[in-house]
Amino acid sequence: MKSHNVVIAGGGSTFTPGIVMMLLDNLHQFPIKKLKFFDNDEERQAVIAKACKILLRERAPDIEFSYTTDPKEAFTDIDFVMAHIRVGKYAMREMDEKIPLKHGVVGQETCGPGGLAYGLRSIGPILELIDFMEKYSPNAWMLNYSNPAAIVAEACRRFKPNTQIINICDMPVGIESHLKEILGFDSAKDFDAIYYGLNHFGWWKTIHDKAGNDLMPQLIDHVKEHGYLAPQILEGEDNQDLWCNQPSWVDTLRKVRDVQALDPTTLPNTYLKYYLFPDYVVEHANPDYTRANEVMDGREKTVFETAKKVVSIGTFEGSDFEADEHAVFIVDLARAIAFNTKERMLLIVPNNGAIANFDNDAMVEIPCLVGKNGPEPLSIGHIPTFQKGLMTQQVCVEKLIVDAWKEGAYQKAWQAMTLSKTVPSASVAKDILDDLIVANKEYWPVLN
Amino acid sequence: MKSHNVVIAGGGSTFTPGIVMMLLDNLHQFPIKKLKFFDNDEERQAVIAKACKILLRERAPDIEFSYTTDPKEAFTDIDFVMAHIRVGKYAMREMDEKIPLKHGVVGQETCGPGGLAYGLRSIGPILELIDFMEKYSPNAWMLNYSNPAAIVAEACRRFKPNTQIINICDMPVGIESHLKEILGFDSAKDFDAIYYGLNHFGWWKTIHDKAGNDLMPQLIDHVKEHGYLAPQILEGEDNQDLWCNQPSWVDTLRKVRDVQALDPTTLPNTYLKYYLFPDYVVEHANPDYTRANEVMDGREKTVFETAKKVVSIGTFEGSDFEADEHAVFIVDLARAIAFNTKERMLLIVPNNGAIANFDNDAMVEIPCLVGKNGPEPLSIGHIPTFQKGLMTQQVCVEKLIVDAWKEGAYQKAWQAMTLSKTVPSASVAKDILDDLIVANKEYWPVLN
Repeated sequence: MKSHNVVIAGGGSTFTPGIVMMLLDNLHQFPIKKLKFFDNDEERQAVIAKACKILLRERAPDIEFSYTTDPKEAFTDIDFVMAHIRVGKYAMREMDEKIPLKHGVVGQETCGPGGLAYGLRSIGPILELIDFMEKYSPNAWMLNYSNPAAIVAEACRRFKPNTQIINICDMPVGIESHLKEILGFDSAKDFDAIYYGLNHFGWWKTIHDKAGNDLMPQLIDHVKEHGYLAPQILEGEDNQDLWCNQPSWVDTLRKVRDVQALDPTTLPNTYLKYYLFPDYVVEHANPDYTRANEVMDGREKTVFETAKKVVSIGTFEGSDFEADEHAVFIVDLARAIAFNTKERMLLIVPNNGAIANFDNDAMVEIPCLVGKNGPEPLSIGHIPTFQKGLMTQQVCVEKLIVDAWKEGAYQKAWQAMTLSKTVPSASVAKDILDDLIVANKEYWPVLN
Repeated sequence: MKSHNVVIAGGGSTFTPGIVMMLLDNLHQFPIKKLKFFDNDEERQAVIAKACKILLRERAPDIEFSYTTDPKEAFTDIDFVMAHIRVGKYAMREMDEKIPLKHGVVGQETCGPGGLAYGLRSIGPILELIDFMEKYSPNAWMLNYSNPAAIVAEACRRFKPNTQIINICDMPVGIESHLKEILGFDSAKDFDAIYYGLNHFGWWKTIHDKAGNDLMPQLIDHVKEHGYLAPQILEGEDNQDLWCNQPSWVDTLRKVRDVQALDPTTLPNTYLKYYLFPDYVVEHANPDYTRANEVMDGREKTVFETAKKVVSIGTFEGSDFEADEHAVFIVDLARAIAFNTKERMLLIVPNNGAIANFDNDAMVEIPCLVGKNGPEPLSIGHIPTFQKGLMTQQVCVEKLIVDAWKEGAYQKAWQAMTLSKTVPSASVAKDILDDLIVANKEYWPVLN
């Protein structure tokens, strides 16, 4: 099996060690020759990278490992770029969450004004990564799971239409792992789903087992009562699942019950609660301590402490980074391209008629078969009026924020915030936007 | 010039006397042979009709006048049906306004939950009027200006696609009369406008004088500062204009300034304030005394008192009904059909590609040339992303409420309320819907 060269863009991310562990677990199906880290924060990356260097030396000495802040070094002789950058880091995520909340509006890293703020920060750096890849390894593929994926994907469609980039999100994979638990299946690969929507904004329409039997009635029965809380969580078992080890995730999984009630024939993405029950979300938020604080005090602290310990004692023995099991979808995706597996995956791709009654030039999240030449989207047909209305509103928000970035247009950013389902009025939109401009002055284009 | 036979459906309306006065003022351009009133409220209609009978005997003795609650009598031997029915009358309008307000949501007869409630009341009776017309005068045209026009028009498109009905609204005409004042023109017919949107949900894109000169810069300069308040209102002159003799209208016209700021290249319909500044609207509303109360204590009282006085003294001398000057658009429309004038008017018609990047099967309000064979819509081209997002959301709301009516589907009504830009969440939508169901039990289909 051919070995590939991989660069992880966002080497200093708290997710990087988990991704590396996952890659190590999957070397049998995706062998790696060179592994590089790239980041623009030299110091932060060095902590993670030095620990990973020790880890790799001990567990996979054949992999040539390096890390750098130099684009030429990072992107030369590469087959895959795995991109998970967070522009502005958790300090800015905290602003994305707290500024809207201050105005009584959902504060979230990808939904509502916070997501738009994060989008305005991310577009430029993602396009820069693409430039690096195209310059130094023109045949490489970028597997991009940087957030906010919907806005990043729209910017890629608009400004880099011919790039070998695949935009993917771990959330459908994450939710399907709950569906798997509810069904009592070993793997989410044991069923075929039709899912449609935008990123963080979609619905499962059908789910069939490999014999073609309809699994929706069973799932709907469960979800109606318990949301996506799987039986073992309901039974109070100690559950170390990545998604469920925090109370906020348990609440999110349970709230699906109410979201699902709006269209009882489908199963919703958990993120729809931000659009459909924003009052509930705001009421249950702590404006002084948000998800960013949880992550900074939790995963970020743990990961960096572990990394520092590994470096100081010079061995990985006795330490652990939790392998990001969900992230195996990245290996599936790389393998699909590398070995033309035609694996069925949910990707964010230009609609081009796949959803018949939706904009052709929208980036939609739908099932695709992935091979050497990229994704082949499945045709979805017509979607219901409720979904079409919500999705069009949201896709226009995302397009307007990309316009705002491109044109440096305050007007378009204000329109985007106003149009968002999460924002109650144009005046609240303006107040939030004006606060976000101040907070993001290092990161956003100037908006006139 | 050929004389025509007209039936006014909604004979007991407070608007009927003003329409009759307007028709009398325009007999020179639209001669009437027979004029009939039709209503399902015999007692209410009788008051208005007896007064109008005296008025007509004294002012236009050649017109054969009659009034009835019998459909066969009303709709036989008719050329035009002028329909302005209000199902549930002002008592139900009061509910449409007060129930949402109780939940902190815009209470308005055509926008938001109140408009949807009114829509669910109106669809059946409008379709019934069409049936009467098609049964007794199959060649007649219905000129429908009953509210909520957007929902009524969608129901007509869906269930009566081949009917000779033209859906029209007086609001663009009303606003253009303000534009005319701002420009210092004698008549709004002295300029050509491109307007696009849904009913009570649109924008003027271009306005040119008859020599083709662009009037938008001058209008935008004025609107930016004063909204649609014309110079003479600003100067505090005593203004008897239909739209401006109430403080709530002055506020509406001024608020346009803020609505226009969201897209400074266009001029908005005044109703957009309900969608874009609902917080402002709710804050400035009196939940115990709404527009329905203003009308019941104002126009309704005056009109019925005048009518009763005319009947009691047996002559119209010394009395007056104010001619509804704005309503002359109804005569323009009837003339356009009767005499194939090809007058340019804003009508609510199936999109069918007129707005290039909008649903073909949406009912849109756009300029049309009207003749003997109905409307010929002008092509609008592409609309901006902000407008497309807002309009798609709203048109899906309207379609869902028509679905709800047709299918008796609670689910669709809940989806419609939830999707509305005026409603903050699915839970608030449900609370309002449940209250509206109780209030409308005599009028709505049963929703399961």
